[in-house]
Amino acid sequence: MTRPETYFDDLRVGDTFTTRTYTVDEAAIIAFAREFDPQPFHLDVEAARRSLFGGLVASGWHTAAITMRLLVTDGALIAGGTVGVGAELAWPTPTRPGDVLHAEVEVIELTPSRSRPDRGTAMLRITTLNQNGDVVQLLTARLLVPRRPPAAPSAD
Amino acid sequence: MTRPETYFDDLRVGDTFTTRTYTVDEAAIIAFAREFDPQPFHLDVEAARRSLFGGLVASGWHTAAITMRLLVTDGALIAGGTVGVGAELAWPTPTRPGDVLHAEVEVIELTPSRSRPDRGTAMLRITTLNQNGDVVQLLTARLLVPRRPPAAPSAD
Repeated sequence: MTRPETYFDDLRVGDTFTTRTYTVDEAAIIAFAREFDPQPFHLDVEAARRSLFGGLVASGWHTAAITMRLLVTDGALIAGGTVGVGAELAWPTPTRPGDVLHAEVEVIELTPSRSRPDRGTAMLRITTLNQNGDVVQLLTARLLVPRRPPAAPSAD
Repeated sequence: MTRPETYFDDLRVGDTFTTRTYTVDEAAIIAFAREFDPQPFHLDVEAARRSLFGGLVASGWHTAAITMRLLVTDGALIAGGTVGVGAELAWPTPTRPGDVLHAEVEVIELTPSRSRPDRGTAMLRITTLNQNGDVVQLLTARLLVPRRPPAAPSAD
């Protein structure tokens, strides 16, 4: 583990970061849909063409899962893990085969816990965009983030 | 397709339905996590035991995806498909290996579109519970639902 861990105390409202990219191919869209969202516009190119989407689109939950992947592997490394307690989601534009997604993250609110001095809640706005700059998902997530523990006694 | 399709006009505020069940096993939790949420408490039983969860738990996005599966295959068959435009999510209890989940759905608001007479928005409260009655996910989802088209001329 080479990335430094981020504690509640390290975050500031207005902090931003950008993840790497993730390319979504047709086979992955169909595989996810088969398991979790088996609807014609996620499964079948021909049926999707006749649907309101006009072509194959990823399940919104697939877009959400990919965004989590981007956050966990390429975003800030929250100490103890990225643990969401709740979220608000919108999918203004569908994800389509070949899309190259990335996420832009902004810290919008920080609330220390009143009852637990070892943690706080961070509210993040996480915008997932495709290669054209279209927003495929707007996510506001509340994360549980530990506070930096008191410095351990020095080893020397 | 033997289930009758549900249009906006068929829904009433207060309507409820319950899905079948879905059993979540450890291998599925780990497979989902490897692809979308590779964190120790979703991937590794031993590491999870030492985490704040005290044992392996499913990614919240896995719980969300399973809930979608329950809705799509065992819930009402919305005409044209179950198309979410937005959602609010909370995960009060984690999903654990061996959990048997089902969802309870209630229609809480119906809003005909002002600009598009062929559709409306249905707000659903979708509660996902485990075998002990613990709520693993609370989802409020806004779905796009088509209105029943004018009756086609009779064939005879």
